[in-house]
Amino acid sequence: MELLAEVLNITAGGRQIAILGEETASLLGVHSSDRICVTHGDQQIIAIANLATHFPKNRIGLYEEISMALGLKGGETVEVCLAKLPESLRHVRAKLRGERLREHDMVTIVKDVVERHLSEVEIAAFLTALKIYGLSMGESEALSRAMVETGETLDFGEAPILDKHSIGGIPGDKTSLLVVPIVAAAGFKIPKTSSRAVTSPAGTADRVETLCPVNLSINEIKAVVEKTNGCLVWGGALDLAPADDLFIQVEYPLGIDPLLLPSIMSKKKAIGATHIAIDIPTGDGAKIKSMTEAYTLASDFVDLGKRLGMNIQCALTFGEQPVGYAIGPALEAQEALTTLMGDGPADLKEKAISLAGMLFEMIGVKGGRQKAENMLKSGRAEKKLREIIEAQGGNPRIKADEMSVGYNKAEVTAKQDGRVLWISTEDTVQIAKAAGAPKEKGAGVVLKAKLGEAVKKDGVLLEIYAERSGKLESALELAKRLQPVMLSKRPEERMLLDRVPEKIAGEKPFMLER
Amino acid sequence: MELLAEVLNITAGGRQIAILGEETASLLGVHSSDRICVTHGDQQIIAIANLATHFPKNRIGLYEEISMALGLKGGETVEVCLAKLPESLRHVRAKLRGERLREHDMVTIVKDVVERHLSEVEIAAFLTALKIYGLSMGESEALSRAMVETGETLDFGEAPILDKHSIGGIPGDKTSLLVVPIVAAAGFKIPKTSSRAVTSPAGTADRVETLCPVNLSINEIKAVVEKTNGCLVWGGALDLAPADDLFIQVEYPLGIDPLLLPSIMSKKKAIGATHIAIDIPTGDGAKIKSMTEAYTLASDFVDLGKRLGMNIQCALTFGEQPVGYAIGPALEAQEALTTLMGDGPADLKEKAISLAGMLFEMIGVKGGRQKAENMLKSGRAEKKLREIIEAQGGNPRIKADEMSVGYNKAEVTAKQDGRVLWISTEDTVQIAKAAGAPKEKGAGVVLKAKLGEAVKKDGVLLEIYAERSGKLESALELAKRLQPVMLSKRPEERMLLDRVPEKIAGEKPFMLER
Repeated sequence: MELLAEVLNITAGGRQIAILGEETASLLGVHSSDRICVTHGDQQIIAIANLATHFPKNRIGLYEEISMALGLKGGETVEVCLAKLPESLRHVRAKLRGERLREHDMVTIVKDVVERHLSEVEIAAFLTALKIYGLSMGESEALSRAMVETGETLDFGEAPILDKHSIGGIPGDKTSLLVVPIVAAAGFKIPKTSSRAVTSPAGTADRVETLCPVNLSINEIKAVVEKTNGCLVWGGALDLAPADDLFIQVEYPLGIDPLLLPSIMSKKKAIGATHIAIDIPTGDGAKIKSMTEAYTLASDFVDLGKRLGMNIQCALTFGEQPVGYAIGPALEAQEALTTLMGDGPADLKEKAISLAGMLFEMIGVKGGRQKAENMLKSGRAEKKLREIIEAQGGNPRIKADEMSVGYNKAEVTAKQDGRVLWISTEDTVQIAKAAGAPKEKGAGVVLKAKLGEAVKKDGVLLEIYAERSGKLESALELAKRLQPVMLSKRPEERMLLDRVPEKIAGEKPFMLER
Repeated sequence: MELLAEVLNITAGGRQIAILGEETASLLGVHSSDRICVTHGDQQIIAIANLATHFPKNRIGLYEEISMALGLKGGETVEVCLAKLPESLRHVRAKLRGERLREHDMVTIVKDVVERHLSEVEIAAFLTALKIYGLSMGESEALSRAMVETGETLDFGEAPILDKHSIGGIPGDKTSLLVVPIVAAAGFKIPKTSSRAVTSPAGTADRVETLCPVNLSINEIKAVVEKTNGCLVWGGALDLAPADDLFIQVEYPLGIDPLLLPSIMSKKKAIGATHIAIDIPTGDGAKIKSMTEAYTLASDFVDLGKRLGMNIQCALTFGEQPVGYAIGPALEAQEALTTLMGDGPADLKEKAISLAGMLFEMIGVKGGRQKAENMLKSGRAEKKLREIIEAQGGNPRIKADEMSVGYNKAEVTAKQDGRVLWISTEDTVQIAKAAGAPKEKGAGVVLKAKLGEAVKKDGVLLEIYAERSGKLESALELAKRLQPVMLSKRPEERMLLDRVPEKIAGEKPFMLER
């Protein structure tokens, strides 16, 4: 059927959407979400039809994605017809029935996700089915490979290429800011891409961005790594495994994360990593609550790594409290810098050295842990970080106390003497976000006591930093209500953990970090 | 944040969608699919945010649903903020985790579906989870009640109110066109609402529409039923259990139908039916393949009926071949009329009499089957149908041979003598649709022989009717390829059913009929 093209001055975030009036759709035999072929001259595109009640019957509304692809300015006549079901949808439906998908099927699905031939409704159903049925190792491998093949890849033309990744979940984890320079200082390549916060107060990219630009192109990354052996960049705009980003867009509102393994591994494969240390924070405050869970996930990572030709080791790390004291982009970068300069919290040092040491030993370096410690102690890691900052376009001479943290500041103090019995990571996250993190990079929380440390009555438990006074107040109010730091003279005095329904427990927060 | 309202001249089919530029969204902390509050004066509305790459940063794009609700003409400033998660989404997520939902949870979900506070992505995930986990009887009841409560209801202020429903799946099933007048002629009320075809060549509403208008308002329906005791109308626009229609919009592209029971029962409850005969066509050619399956479904219908205060009986009917000979809106209406006038296929008569008889006996009429037969034989049912046609605004004197069936006609003939060993309902459906049904009401297929009937070589197996010669050709070509009617001199000569991969088997067609 011939229709008049009406160019809508809107992009649909990549979605290929065309709008038809209901009458027109019914004449074409098109139902909502059906695919249609839109042809103009020798250009053809498959779009997903959205039906509109009052849209003029002789017209088709085209979002920019489509009008640009077809080179339309508006007012042209286009030929529109019902397209047949894409093969990928057959495979999606097979998964809804619980069938096992083969490599070919996964490739077809991922291709159509990237080319926007599958609607978000169909992707949502697919991800839900994967969440409920789970993925076989074969499906995870096929999905990972497909996600790599449909995106950009980096190749440094040499091995080993080292990498470090945390599945995330505990606040204050700025370990990558130490591991990357430690590894690079030892002369090994570690091109670290990372994400911004989605549900947390700070992602590695947010932290690094307070020191230097992180939004580099693939070629800029190559140059930085050639020069310094390392980088700390944002992976989001590099088009590495782009399907993953599209899946995450749909997973986020649903609060599900069925593709944790393929998602992480495809990104690592795409940047050409050969040896990867994967950090699995484990404990009540983390994504992974029990050691059993952690061991299962770890061996899945190792297996999938083997299948994808990558050497994986997982570190199960203590996840009962934040790493270090600082939470929030600038505060964490500041703490990382201080630590590289010789000062800083013991647990952060310990974690960075363990992970870097693990990586060294994976590539056959004897006494890897010792080597990592030397890189840190000798100041070579600090020097390396400053090289990376400079190479990425930041100020290499930056001092920790020059970093711009929130001007507005408040303290939460202890009502009694005692030792810190536990710290609620979830509450800490809520408070840091209430203070403005991650959008306001200077906002966040600094703990003044960690597990087991002694605090005097009226001593400071935590400081809140904010860029806006309004947010400081609401964060402070929240902190007083939640009381994230629990004190006790002796553990046995604090047997009552909580009273229900005294504290209004929201649902367990959903963590989506990469 | 204050933004300039840009009124988009588009309706989103009821969806409450607002478009934000990515920069603006990030300042608001809004991710794609997050909900936002849009406030103008004392009017506030919750919308689902779609992020657009190049949308101006100081603006918010509003589809008509929203601009109208807020009384905006465009150019006004509106206050926009991130809204918190709706409670219903918490329950949806609980179901994704496999949790059992309580009545309150279902009500919250259905309300937010109807009020468009849940996005299609979230509804898709919910329906997928229900398809995989299945619904408990309690969940089905809660869902049915919620769907009734959120829509219009009919009340004739008397009992019994009879109804008949087929779960559909076999072509040519025009039984309702006989059952309704038979029941009404006997002096009982039967306000029959039905659907248009979604995946089949004809729905009851499509058939009746070739005799009279079917798009009546609730008040018009009441008037028709007061006058004639019956009606045959389209249920789609009556806002009876509107949530169901929204669920179906999402189920259709996914090819899943997890809400069969609540969907049917809520519609029946909404029109106030007290006694319902439910037809479950069973057999290889039907939705339900085996008697075991059919008995399970039947007892679920009966149980759910009890819970909802409706008296249900299910009829398991022969589903190995089409009902009667004709397939396609006008052809089927013609056949129904002929049958009411004393002629017509035996199986159609038999089915109509059995179902009407069942209904009579359900309300305590002795010899119900006999009574149904009398209504048909005496011509009172025909007279009643003509009354209904007239009351709905059609021509009561219409003759069967005056009905406008497709002008273009072709025949498929037998290559040998033999008896009809089987008829593929799926293939017949494909051919009728290729000929133009249901959109082209005169198009369809007429079988010339049914199971067990003898055919001579070169004798006609089926006729194809089409309104356009092009479609006639493609339907004929398809018929010759599929060969929907299988002949054999004696069964034992036809032991080889099919050769794989000789025939290209598509995936099992998805049937979504109400």
